[in-house]
Amino acid sequence: MDSWSVAGRTFNSRLIVGTGKYRDFAQNAAAVEASAAEIVTVAVRRVNVMDRGQPMLTDFIDPKRYTYLPNTAGCFTAEDAVRTLRLAREAGGWNLVKLEVLADQKTLFPDVVETIRATETLVKDGFEVMVYTSDDPVVAKRLEEAGAAAIMPLGAPIGSGLGIQNRVTIRLIVEAAKVPVLVDAGVGTASDAAIAMELGCDGVLMNTAIAEAKDPVLMAAAMRDAVVAGRKAYRAGRMGVRRYADPSSPLGGLI
Amino acid sequence: MDSWSVAGRTFNSRLIVGTGKYRDFAQNAAAVEASAAEIVTVAVRRVNVMDRGQPMLTDFIDPKRYTYLPNTAGCFTAEDAVRTLRLAREAGGWNLVKLEVLADQKTLFPDVVETIRATETLVKDGFEVMVYTSDDPVVAKRLEEAGAAAIMPLGAPIGSGLGIQNRVTIRLIVEAAKVPVLVDAGVGTASDAAIAMELGCDGVLMNTAIAEAKDPVLMAAAMRDAVVAGRKAYRAGRMGVRRYADPSSPLGGLI
Amino acid sequence: MDSWSVAGRTFNSRLIVGTGKYRDFAQNAAAVEASAAEIVTVAVRRVNVMDRGQPMLTDFIDPKRYTYLPNTAGCFTAEDAVRTLRLAREAGGWNLVKLEVLADQKTLFPDVVETIRATETLVKDGFEVMVYTSDDPVVAKRLEEAGAAAIMPLGAPIGSGLGIQNRVTIRLIVEAAKVPVLVDAGVGTASDAAIAMELGCDGVLMNTAIAEAKDPVLMAAAMRDAVVAGRKAYRAGRMGVRRYADPSSPLGGLI
Amino acid sequence: MDSWSVAGRTFNSRLIVGTGKYRDFAQNAAAVEASAAEIVTVAVRRVNVMDRGQPMLTDFIDPKRYTYLPNTAGCFTAEDAVRTLRLAREAGGWNLVKLEVLADQKTLFPDVVETIRATETLVKDGFEVMVYTSDDPVVAKRLEEAGAAAIMPLGAPIGSGLGIQNRVTIRLIVEAAKVPVLVDAGVGTASDAAIAMELGCDGVLMNTAIAEAKDPVLMAAAMRDAVVAGRKAYRAGRMGVRRYADPSSPLGGLI
Repeated sequence: MDSWSVAGRTFNSRLIVGTGKYRDFAQNAAAVEASAAEIVTVAVRRVNVMDRGQPMLTDFIDPKRYTYLPNTAGCFTAEDAVRTLRLAREAGGWNLVKLEVLADQKTLFPDVVETIRATETLVKDGFEVMVYTSDDPVVAKRLEEAGAAAIMPLGAPIGSGLGIQNRVTIRLIVEAAKVPVLVDAGVGTASDAAIAMELGCDGVLMNTAIAEAKDPVLMAAAMRDAVVAGRKAYRAGRMGVRRYADPSSPLGGLI
Repeated sequence: MDSWSVAGRTFNSRLIVGTGKYRDFAQNAAAVEASAAEIVTVAVRRVNVMDRGQPMLTDFIDPKRYTYLPNTAGCFTAEDAVRTLRLAREAGGWNLVKLEVLADQKTLFPDVVETIRATETLVKDGFEVMVYTSDDPVVAKRLEEAGAAAIMPLGAPIGSGLGIQNRVTIRLIVEAAKVPVLVDAGVGTASDAAIAMELGCDGVLMNTAIAEAKDPVLMAAAMRDAVVAGRKAYRAGRMGVRRYADPSSPLGGLI
Repeated sequence: MDSWSVAGRTFNSRLIVGTGKYRDFAQNAAAVEASAAEIVTVAVRRVNVMDRGQPMLTDFIDPKRYTYLPNTAGCFTAEDAVRTLRLAREAGGWNLVKLEVLADQKTLFPDVVETIRATETLVKDGFEVMVYTSDDPVVAKRLEEAGAAAIMPLGAPIGSGLGIQNRVTIRLIVEAAKVPVLVDAGVGTASDAAIAMELGCDGVLMNTAIAEAKDPVLMAAAMRDAVVAGRKAYRAGRMGVRRYADPSSPLGGLI
Repeated sequence: MDSWSVAGRTFNSRLIVGTGKYRDFAQNAAAVEASAAEIVTVAVRRVNVMDRGQPMLTDFIDPKRYTYLPNTAGCFTAEDAVRTLRLAREAGGWNLVKLEVLADQKTLFPDVVETIRATETLVKDGFEVMVYTSDDPVVAKRLEEAGAAAIMPLGAPIGSGLGIQNRVTIRLIVEAAKVPVLVDAGVGTASDAAIAMELGCDGVLMNTAIAEAKDPVLMAAAMRDAVVAGRKAYRAGRMGVRRYADPSSPLGGLI
């Protein structure tokens, strides 16, 4: 079985899905089911997982069956992110968390300086931290050195659906990392997810690509298959590329 | 069930695989099994399907279980291709065929003028012709008018593994076609196959991408999943793309 | 001097510009001036070059200074194209012509079968024929064998501004050709023109990219510089590409 | 005149060239001449600009005619970079400098945390600092807030020649910046430089693409023209892009 591990836990699915932007919890649950994900990430500030007087996500997506991964969506400073995760741990006992410290509302890019700071604090605090970051290989290494349990570089801006913009940096991160690397953000369709896996990533996290598809449940199934396909292709070792153009031409191998 | 039909036959699998370049027939058969293909294409000039004194493909890949699609690999004129398929029909009763008329040994590009001629002859002759062609939408339309049962544009040169070079032309062919469109040639890895399906193609044919992978059987399974993933993503209707850059900028929507 | 020749005439500029879609003849003339083009192509069916009772292009763009290249824009059959060019030759004495036989109004793709037929007729008729065609290397070779004076593959659909979609095919055409190759159609901005030249083309023809820019005259100057830059870069021999990712990785040199 | 300014100085050329990897100072000087650059960047640790007993760069490239921009190539900590530039200022009086703090020898990626620190120190110290950085828009903003005189994101790894990998991030940096933005690193050929300018950058810095071309002086001329072309195209306002594929198709505008 081709499983992967983070923070001492082992998973068979390499697809992590979100719990935002769905029509309702029922649709979300159906998409999670179709995705075969074992981990769901939850914006604990936005999604009701504690107030029993309101509909609760946990009534639809069973926390005994799925690993809940609380995230800090909407946090714009290290302090805010740390506080949010401490509250979540107190309330739900969650120790494995996803950290994101965003820089601004427009691009939703991470603030990597604040992210490094927050990682250091959370690790000291005993959290297992999966970290959303830019695709900068040096920052990725710094986060690993700070004790991150997994590195989660963006493929493109959150919610953009543009697909992986820079294969060079994702690949450099994968080659250098000693902890799992998962592309987080930017996937728009199935082939984008397959490409992430073909680059050697350990997994992919996505939300909008499923939630905003015309048929989210069918897209969730597509993503499940795409992640599996990309992973198998990576392990199978793809054919070499043949360029029929004259190799001595001034193109220098560029096509 | 999301099936497709060509020449009155219905298939569930949208992946057609080849029978060349494998280590031996046993490996080929294992890859076909893993691919879940229902159609295998056979270069009837090169692969032994008739001489009982030699190992025969049909001993490994059961023609009762799989639809054999004889092809004209190695034919460089319309006459040669037509003759090859007539011999194949006499020998094996095959009426559904894949026509390819190549122009030269180096690029293995199709000769579209000869291909149109051969299609006309074969259709008159009662064949059901799936036609390998360039990605020229006008030639594709001409082949359909000549009676082709399916249009099979190349994504990149045969055996190059470069992936689909021109999404615009593949998409134009799909939009205009009234018969199935399958990308034939150029796929190198799983994401390439997914992209073909996301463009709306009815299927994908490949040989080298599987046969020349380090682990052909695992790659065959990857391709099975990738075709399914791409098809589901197409049907699910992908999210729109958000460009965070100022839409009034001089980029005119180019990124 | 890095000149090029077609049909026995030698030119220093490698940029050919059109004469459609401009606000008026004066703007067109200013753009041609800024482009430093020596050849202008004229849709002889649409642009007034003969009726002295109306404003005439020739009053603004001097046929003694610029080589007029009549084209067959708007012709959808070989016969129509041949007739158009014969009329043009009678009227203006033009023997060097640009043939385009389009297939339909929507995509403006060439009909390569009709194009080959028309080329044969025109060559017999004594014309020097520069031919607009698809980026199919085999068709390009056929046109050369039919006597074409230059091959003009499209980079993308006419008027799309999408840039060169398939570098592999353009490069294959350049490597095989014994006559000049010019990209005709698809250029949207300066870098697109530079890329065409870096692929080894002898020149570029464009109309919409200049005429529909916000400032056509400034864009004409940009295109002049871009063609020169791309040509120099091709001749200078670009640096090799270094991929920092581990060359033994499963990426197989794909990034 | 379309000039630009940094740190109170105004330049007409938007191309900054390096002084490393050339055969000798004479070839370097010829390339600088052909490039029409007004600024040359000098690795003050590696290039002799002070020892009168050895051949000196200043004997070939006149510091009265060209603005020397000392850089910190080879510095891997903020302290080292700051020390290097202080020494350079004492020796040559250079106040306008290019800061680069690299993270490792293999990828030559910047260490953005150290880079922010060094920028703060240098600005306090009265330097005008042009800063090499990753293409992270948030880090770019932080550097600007720290007082950087110009932001210089990489297009691809130093010396890779891969061209701009991520147009989205470069564009986001340009849109947000109040100081000049110049692509620094990654350009391989003329079209890459044109693309940088079409994205709205104020300029481009390159070294390897010129020094390692087969004909560095001709490539320098190509780059001069390409930067001018890209800038003009940006100012001229490119045509819109037309996608001939059905806009209501599931492609969602992706091709």
